[in-house]
Amino acid sequence: MTPDNQLEQSIVEIARRARSAAQKLAKASSAQKDEGLRVIAANLRGRTSPLLQSNRKDVERAKQAGLTSALIDRLTLTKKRIEAMAAGLDEITRLPDPVGEVTRMWRRPNGLRIGKVRVPIGVIGFIYESRPNVTVDAAGLCVKSGNAIILRGGSEAIESNSAVAEVVALSLGQAGLPEDCVQLLRMTDRAAVNIMLKLDEYIDLIIPRGGKPLIKLVVENSMIPVIMHYEGICHTYVDEFADLDMAETICMNAKVQRPGVCNAMETLLVHSRVAEEFLPRMCKSYTDASVEIRGCDKTRKILPKAKAATDEDWRTEYLDLILSVKVVDSIDEAIEHIARYGSAHSDAIVTENYRRAQQFIEEVDSSAVFVNASTRFNDGFEFGLGAEIGISTNRLHCRGPMGLEELTTYKYIVYGNGQIRQ
Amino acid sequence: MTPDNQLEQSIVEIARRARSAAQKLAKASSAQKDEGLRVIAANLRGRTSPLLQSNRKDVERAKQAGLTSALIDRLTLTKKRIEAMAAGLDEITRLPDPVGEVTRMWRRPNGLRIGKVRVPIGVIGFIYESRPNVTVDAAGLCVKSGNAIILRGGSEAIESNSAVAEVVALSLGQAGLPEDCVQLLRMTDRAAVNIMLKLDEYIDLIIPRGGKPLIKLVVENSMIPVIMHYEGICHTYVDEFADLDMAETICMNAKVQRPGVCNAMETLLVHSRVAEEFLPRMCKSYTDASVEIRGCDKTRKILPKAKAATDEDWRTEYLDLILSVKVVDSIDEAIEHIARYGSAHSDAIVTENYRRAQQFIEEVDSSAVFVNASTRFNDGFEFGLGAEIGISTNRLHCRGPMGLEELTTYKYIVYGNGQIRQ
Repeated sequence: MTPDNQLEQSIVEIARRARSAAQKLAKASSAQKDEGLRVIAANLRGRTSPLLQSNRKDVERAKQAGLTSALIDRLTLTKKRIEAMAAGLDEITRLPDPVGEVTRMWRRPNGLRIGKVRVPIGVIGFIYESRPNVTVDAAGLCVKSGNAIILRGGSEAIESNSAVAEVVALSLGQAGLPEDCVQLLRMTDRAAVNIMLKLDEYIDLIIPRGGKPLIKLVVENSMIPVIMHYEGICHTYVDEFADLDMAETICMNAKVQRPGVCNAMETLLVHSRVAEEFLPRMCKSYTDASVEIRGCDKTRKILPKAKAATDEDWRTEYLDLILSVKVVDSIDEAIEHIARYGSAHSDAIVTENYRRAQQFIEEVDSSAVFVNASTRFNDGFEFGLGAEIGISTNRLHCRGPMGLEELTTYKYIVYGNGQIRQ
Repeated sequence: MTPDNQLEQSIVEIARRARSAAQKLAKASSAQKDEGLRVIAANLRGRTSPLLQSNRKDVERAKQAGLTSALIDRLTLTKKRIEAMAAGLDEITRLPDPVGEVTRMWRRPNGLRIGKVRVPIGVIGFIYESRPNVTVDAAGLCVKSGNAIILRGGSEAIESNSAVAEVVALSLGQAGLPEDCVQLLRMTDRAAVNIMLKLDEYIDLIIPRGGKPLIKLVVENSMIPVIMHYEGICHTYVDEFADLDMAETICMNAKVQRPGVCNAMETLLVHSRVAEEFLPRMCKSYTDASVEIRGCDKTRKILPKAKAATDEDWRTEYLDLILSVKVVDSIDEAIEHIARYGSAHSDAIVTENYRRAQQFIEEVDSSAVFVNASTRFNDGFEFGLGAEIGISTNRLHCRGPMGLEELTTYKYIVYGNGQIRQ
């Protein structure tokens, strides 16, 4: 057998075990699944030292490889971070189990009772990069929603992920659930990913979390449906009828509160009738917060020190303290700009005008459209949906926060008493 | 420019126009969209002769090419069939518009009001084979649900499809809707499909309808999400506690009423405790209806004239008057057989026992699970959902009948009054 065949066979074997585990997990009660999560949490807390030891190997390797301090920080586990992972699982146990919920039921004229019931998706392939805490979050959400998960983390975190996944699998076994519900793929090369993406017989959904090249690779090669988190080029449009104090507060929050995340604002659109009043004061606050501004020509007439924005800027997710600013002459121009350059993630209008608010809500087609609120609210916790495995930029199956409900699909159940089709 | 580049450019141009049309259509009112459908229906009725003329060219070509009479029948338009196409559109105008429906809305502790609203998917690529009536059905459903559609029909029906698509586009224009909402791809070779499958910037969803090779080609090559209709290997399990008269009626209906469709039964599972009583009488009815039976060893002890079923039979969607029959010793064996060989389409149990019914409903994971009813009911009309563009065998986005609601996705709308994230 060639090494390639061996690799393929071992991945197929993992996927087959995941399928079988998923079928058992789908029948587990909410109480059993919650017990599984509680045992994982207890074992994480009880095995803090060996987990830290495994993590140290990854961190050492990362330092020798010269990774940036930001990456090393993301990779590093501490006692506190392990406690946070365990607390996250406790949190998931408190969320309602989506599986089995009958979302609708009706009666047909012929007497058939037809219902739609939530069921688990099945087997999820989760491809992610370095943070070891993601391993636990994803496993917890999948187990609670009745899905088996195959974890394929980055090579930088392999020791930490292996140690964590081992604790998880062992805990599931202790709780009477199939250990194979959560399996880690130890092969961290791209070839392994490519094999995984073809196993549509065993895997129902691929969720990639990571940089653009990884996601592109997955979308181009997957025969399995993919729910991805691509990018968040989020806008705030300050309308001519905005309360400018509110606008300043919201724009500050949307850009500065956590600039490195997907729902942070990347482009500010300002109506020309208020630009001369609004931009100088906004600019002062941004400058105090070290935000670099790149403006259109009209912006630079008002803010002469601002750099010039290029067409590329409107398409860029900075994930940093940089903001592109454009002055527009109408709400229509703002909406057109968002449709053209945005990524349909999170977009907001600030206005006191009812019609403008309604037009923006109707015509902007993003996963979340906000009136008078910060784009930073596009988040499972903030929406009240509980923990999330990511924010989907897909249009299908789910958009925006992907929590427990979004980790399920449905089936129809039909109760008859002998009906046949005419 | 090479011919390949030219082909690509013209398909990109069609897709770009579809995207632009979709953005306008998304804003159209229900009344405007219904008016569009009514104008299409009127024009189909008014142009019956030229449509029949175009169709005759396809039929002639098909005859010369020696296509089977079944295929030629599917391809042939008649006055009655054109009237049925128009009547189908009238039917769609009477269905509720799914777009804009707020399916949920709630208030967060910080005062944000968050709602989930149905919005169109966007641009749909519809790849199908010969029936020209499908062209109108698909166009009607897409327009009503606010989606632009790119139709790529089979080469056999190119004249008919072109004539129909022309009437549709012209009618949309007359009704004040963008003509490019419905466009026909006249390039009927596979190269055109392959180009289309890469245009994820412009096309949001691909729906292939046709044989397995076509669907496989699409799934393997698409960078765009695919909702497919793969196959229906549907089972009816006659439990030991079945009312055998009811079982006979249901099994007859599920196999014979229309054997060539996806929700027809392909495999009958019978509990061993009732097999000796049930199989001979069932077999008599089937024989009268010209159904060929292929049985397991136990079946053949009871029905010595039955052919032997091979492992391949359990995996086969006959779409014909052929039925595989297996005697099982328990409901668990029946459920395991369905999980192993079925296609998760439509499966039924016949039983008077409450626990057995509930176990079957819980543990069989098919798009529709029936108790005491024919699998033939897995259908948009029969479920009361209205017309359908197909029955999805995907697990994600939608399972089972894909009607107007399933042709939408959602966005979150968030009404605030200055909230920022802490």
